[in-house]
Amino acid sequence: MENFTRFNPTKLIFGKGVVDHICDEVSPVGKRAIIVIGKGSVKASGLYARLVSLLNMCSIEHVTYEGIKSNPIYQDADNAVQLAKDFGADMIIAVGGGSVIDTAKAVAMGYYVEHSVWDFYLQKAKPVKALPVFTILTLAATGTEMNPFTVLQDTENGSKRGYGHPLLHPKASFLDPTFTTTVPANYTAYGVSDLIAHCLEQFFGSGNSPLTDLHTAAVIKLAVEYGFKVKEQANDYDTRANIMWLATNALNGSLTAGKNSGDWACHGFEHSLSVLFDIPHGAGLSIVFPAWLKYHQKQLQQKLCFLAKQVFEIETGKPEQDASAFIDRLELFFQEINTPIRLSQVNILPSSKAEILANFKLNKVNGQVYKLTEQDHEAILDFMW
Amino acid sequence: MENFTRFNPTKLIFGKGVVDHICDEVSPVGKRAIIVIGKGSVKASGLYARLVSLLNMCSIEHVTYEGIKSNPIYQDADNAVQLAKDFGADMIIAVGGGSVIDTAKAVAMGYYVEHSVWDFYLQKAKPVKALPVFTILTLAATGTEMNPFTVLQDTENGSKRGYGHPLLHPKASFLDPTFTTTVPANYTAYGVSDLIAHCLEQFFGSGNSPLTDLHTAAVIKLAVEYGFKVKEQANDYDTRANIMWLATNALNGSLTAGKNSGDWACHGFEHSLSVLFDIPHGAGLSIVFPAWLKYHQKQLQQKLCFLAKQVFEIETGKPEQDASAFIDRLELFFQEINTPIRLSQVNILPSSKAEILANFKLNKVNGQVYKLTEQDHEAILDFMW
Repeated sequence: MENFTRFNPTKLIFGKGVVDHICDEVSPVGKRAIIVIGKGSVKASGLYARLVSLLNMCSIEHVTYEGIKSNPIYQDADNAVQLAKDFGADMIIAVGGGSVIDTAKAVAMGYYVEHSVWDFYLQKAKPVKALPVFTILTLAATGTEMNPFTVLQDTENGSKRGYGHPLLHPKASFLDPTFTTTVPANYTAYGVSDLIAHCLEQFFGSGNSPLTDLHTAAVIKLAVEYGFKVKEQANDYDTRANIMWLATNALNGSLTAGKNSGDWACHGFEHSLSVLFDIPHGAGLSIVFPAWLKYHQKQLQQKLCFLAKQVFEIETGKPEQDASAFIDRLELFFQEINTPIRLSQVNILPSSKAEILANFKLNKVNGQVYKLTEQDHEAILDFMW
Repeated sequence: MENFTRFNPTKLIFGKGVVDHICDEVSPVGKRAIIVIGKGSVKASGLYARLVSLLNMCSIEHVTYEGIKSNPIYQDADNAVQLAKDFGADMIIAVGGGSVIDTAKAVAMGYYVEHSVWDFYLQKAKPVKALPVFTILTLAATGTEMNPFTVLQDTENGSKRGYGHPLLHPKASFLDPTFTTTVPANYTAYGVSDLIAHCLEQFFGSGNSPLTDLHTAAVIKLAVEYGFKVKEQANDYDTRANIMWLATNALNGSLTAGKNSGDWACHGFEHSLSVLFDIPHGAGLSIVFPAWLKYHQKQLQQKLCFLAKQVFEIETGKPEQDASAFIDRLELFFQEINTPIRLSQVNILPSSKAEILANFKLNKVNGQVYKLTEQDHEAILDFMW
């Protein structure tokens, strides 16, 4: 086991009706909230009105920044910072999925500085203070509700970047699986592929940590099981609850104990695809990950056999065959839940190859463990068609 | 899945040499520490001298309360509170195992009140403030290094009681597995049985939570694997590291998500045995748990079969047989690591039966899920001989 630190001060409040208790958490913290939301689905669902009515009951003044898009841009965060400053906010309440919450984290840091939030992502600045962030999650996918990470993009310059800082742990996050029962089938599937990708990125990190490996495999195994179930039972509370909790676990630090950093090359590849073609993050990951696994199959053989056994109960005693079987079964699963596994399925054609490779290079896509050259980039990209 | 809250703000710093960084954590918090230690083993090992030298380097004044016993008594906590008040401590550093840390938590609460700490355990008082607690763990067992619980006893009145409060989460805990390589074989084994008992108490709680169940089974499976290994390789860092991390996981909230409270009857039984006969907690648990499982075997059959499969890879298709096999294998494991499975092995004779049953009654030993009558007490006790 490698040395590690586990620190996650977010209070996660999970289950039916938990948002009704939001005043218990926000009242001790402040009096003026900026609410950040996406393009209106939380208004259509009635959740926004419910939140406003709760905040009114505990006399929290509020203003709302609306319109965060699903591949969120730093300009929205900068605009929301201005609104928060003008309003004199003392907290942020993010209501939505990963994009909204990641924007809210940027606003939390941006509130105390005079420069663009993008400077944090460019590693030109570090926050020394941040507004407290509360989240109400409506999409199970990214894990941002219980971690210190945020990803935004600069669309014009083709750059999508992540940033992490301990100040960015949400103070409290409310996870009511009921809110996810209306998520359409495609975004539900993208959430499942996203959470599986998070498991795999960390699993293929370096360091030997038996409990973490079994825990990671358990998350993937259940993501497959409930990924199938939710296709048939989109409204089933327990199915949605399991997927929501799996997604949080996949990136809240639970799967890193005793290991060094994960690999994260696949996230680099996917960020390029999303920033160039505006495809959903989870849809990109289900294309990228099988390609990366195939390219590294020999090096990863032992670990792939472990996953084949733990996730799919495959153990033939022939390691090469079992390693292949894991990749095949994973691809098959992605196909069955209708998340794409080839670029052509999202209308990205081989004519874009040069543009994509240039973006991989621009954004220095490189694995933490399995280091990549430009030749590797091209070979892995070829597996995506 | 049941509604639940996950909140654990303790910063856990795990690995070789981590104590060297203690000043980074304590310096921002205060200037005057009360150090709490046991009966001298941390002095003999040199750890105490190392801590003192580190604290001197960052100008933390300190005073030491020494002599906490392995079934810790509230009187020691009251005495340490007085010392802390006289010294004007602004933090507590506990160096030792669960007894020392649990005492330190009592001191943290007691510092701000004028009554005995025992009043908290008797539910006569609640803390509104507590000193920050730092821990340096030297024994893998109880999980107190990363949870808000403490257990002390009133020996004269035959009462051992637990207390939990969010203020009692340690601020930071340092876990260097190296410190556990000198723990004698019997206490190492008691630590393993303690951590397995924590898993089982929570596993037999109510509520259906698939990820939590797989995670719990993984902790037990590895506790068995490394419990065997440590017998042969007491000095192996990686073996000790795994056991240490398993023990923390077994009671840091990781195994409660999506479930209602655990059962905890076995801890009640064990507390009676420890307070009456001063036996180590883990030694008591390896006697109590098999008895409780046998008594409830029919009701628990499905869950026992799950554990038989996940922990021991037993799956004959005959549920009654698999359930029995899990209990048998667990007992066999306890025997093989030399932690007792019958009262006679710790010199508690049938002539004490009435006294034990009276203590069960006095301390209202009752399961949270599988409720117990006095008749149940007697029947379960009979399985312990």
